[in-house]
Amino acid sequence: MKVRVQQQRLSAAIQQVQRAVATHSTLPILSGIKIVAAADVIHFTATDLEVAVETWIPADAGQSVSVDLPGTIVLPAKYMSEVVRKLPEPWVHLTVDQPYSARIESGSASFVLHGFDPEEFPRLPQVTGDQPFVLQSDALKTALRQTIVAAAVEETRPVLTGLCLSFDSDSVTFVATDSHRLAIRTLFLQGGPEASVHQAVVPGKSVQELIRLLPDDDSSVELVIADNTLLVQTPSVRFYSRLLEGQYPDTSKIIPTTYKTRIQINPDIFVGALERAQLIAREMQNQVVRAQLQQAQMELSTHSHDVGRLSEVVPVEQFTGDPFTIAFNAKYMLDAVRAFDGDRVTLDFTGAMSPMILRPIDGQEYLHLVLPVRTV
Amino acid sequence: MKVRVQQQRLSAAIQQVQRAVATHSTLPILSGIKIVAAADVIHFTATDLEVAVETWIPADAGQSVSVDLPGTIVLPAKYMSEVVRKLPEPWVHLTVDQPYSARIESGSASFVLHGFDPEEFPRLPQVTGDQPFVLQSDALKTALRQTIVAAAVEETRPVLTGLCLSFDSDSVTFVATDSHRLAIRTLFLQGGPEASVHQAVVPGKSVQELIRLLPDDDSSVELVIADNTLLVQTPSVRFYSRLLEGQYPDTSKIIPTTYKTRIQINPDIFVGALERAQLIAREMQNQVVRAQLQQAQMELSTHSHDVGRLSEVVPVEQFTGDPFTIAFNAKYMLDAVRAFDGDRVTLDFTGAMSPMILRPIDGQEYLHLVLPVRTV
Repeated sequence: MKVRVQQQRLSAAIQQVQRAVATHSTLPILSGIKIVAAADVIHFTATDLEVAVETWIPADAGQSVSVDLPGTIVLPAKYMSEVVRKLPEPWVHLTVDQPYSARIESGSASFVLHGFDPEEFPRLPQVTGDQPFVLQSDALKTALRQTIVAAAVEETRPVLTGLCLSFDSDSVTFVATDSHRLAIRTLFLQGGPEASVHQAVVPGKSVQELIRLLPDDDSSVELVIADNTLLVQTPSVRFYSRLLEGQYPDTSKIIPTTYKTRIQINPDIFVGALERAQLIAREMQNQVVRAQLQQAQMELSTHSHDVGRLSEVVPVEQFTGDPFTIAFNAKYMLDAVRAFDGDRVTLDFTGAMSPMILRPIDGQEYLHLVLPVRTV
Repeated sequence: MKVRVQQQRLSAAIQQVQRAVATHSTLPILSGIKIVAAADVIHFTATDLEVAVETWIPADAGQSVSVDLPGTIVLPAKYMSEVVRKLPEPWVHLTVDQPYSARIESGSASFVLHGFDPEEFPRLPQVTGDQPFVLQSDALKTALRQTIVAAAVEETRPVLTGLCLSFDSDSVTFVATDSHRLAIRTLFLQGGPEASVHQAVVPGKSVQELIRLLPDDDSSVELVIADNTLLVQTPSVRFYSRLLEGQYPDTSKIIPTTYKTRIQINPDIFVGALERAQLIAREMQNQVVRAQLQQAQMELSTHSHDVGRLSEVVPVEQFTGDPFTIAFNAKYMLDAVRAFDGDRVTLDFTGAMSPMILRPIDGQEYLHLVLPVRTV
């Protein structure tokens, strides 16, 4: 292998795949990045066997890459990334002329890095054949962010640590719940296989990585589900994730259809007040904050024996229904409210021990449900 | 106590003193900040008994502070700082009308924080009487930075973990050494007690805090040494540090007065090459890098059995003397070179097992000595 590549492009490619590198694996080769130089493109792949990320730099008439001799090598991600970031000149020469080690030259600096046999690098799953589901990148990214926050962190029921994607012929619904809260978002598909019904539960950690990789623009993203794997393809990255096994619970029944009290509230102001309440409430298990609703205002209060207490009045708009008192977990409510943009959220109270439901006022197919906390 | 204070000013004052707060003390009150409201000023003090920091907000005709009722309280630093940072409005009302707890109000938010009896807060040392030594803040800050890096981290000889300040009638010399390297810097005093000779060894941690507190401008800073304490007074902060006990070694004899080979080198280019060498060298104890000097160039090389190797040619100017080969610890040399500004440093080699000495070319009274590493 003998290639010449722009330092910035090489560094960016390494960074794209680096987070898929296994940090504590018993298989040393998983600490590496596989680099494959073909006639007109260099491919970079990393995997921890749970997710895999693949990116590439096309040989654009030598503008950022030229491949003099095709070849392949696996190099340790940690050293590769640091070495490339610290190179003195804007062009890098990468040469493999002995088995499993590479020479990296830039200006008057010449590194040799020991690597691994590329034949031993795990093969990525072959996810092909099916017509992909197509979504817009920024819409997908928002939907993932709005829902994954409600997924379980603890692994008591492993399937709840994931995000459930349910596809039908023209839409996909994202659902996450840790059994204390629930987030549901629906997006219309730009394209997909006909008459197809698919469900897939993607691990929470994979969703976080995917959020990081998706571009904030309207480019098209293709999703394929096959062989217990989700493949997401953006214009510059292919992302693979293993799926979680197990039946995802049916959550459609637990959403109340009526309310006792309904308010509209400014999410930014609400977040500020909740963050202040959390400074005190986080000292307690359950982070209990009490809300007292009366015409045109909501009074939040919380206290901790050791630290002190807070009370704060939050302005409320469009109050419908009766005065109402309820208690909730500050963190859960914060996670929910932070998922909303705009200057107005609808918040429904359905009973002192029944769910609170947050919805956007713009008609977006999104809701976030939070269960109250029982207090004495 | 009843005061009204600008949120930004209050937050800044808390931040100034907060790093002196004890984080793991058995004395709970040391986790607090003492606040004293007098008729025309509010004082803030924190201490971990090793250092103490005091700052104040003057009541400038109510522009940033107005004191309605003088008083004093000790409030937990962690909560105080977070609560104040998250307040909703630009003005804060701080009221103490019950023993040892304070009400903090801003906009429609009202906190109560539990505190401590201010009578139990430790008294600061009384460091007064002597005429102070006077230095310019930015010059002092630079001198501290240039030298403290050579101090010992390990406590085998506790006195070496400090920075030794030696005052005579018109100058002060800063010395630090961990016995592998040595940094010496001299500054002329802008004022000081007549015919006075003082020596004080300031703990390294205190020096780091002082660097952080000193403003980057030409304001005057006053130093007083008394009662085993260093007091540093800037226009807005009083900083106290306990001194280290024990005799500081006499380092004046170990600086060679001749050299075998002398070069001048660009510190930025040298730092870049050393950082690259360190990527490989840090895998070894001693971080050994070899330098081969020949007319107009220095070739750095290093290798690690596990990772790989580097070689790099660094351009050299003003080469005087014979070709020369030597090995050194990459970290020690990096620490030394990073302490220099400008585009040229003089580097003297005095023998294969004798010190290397870095000096500025602008006549500044500064030198940094690094001992070589024995290699096979």
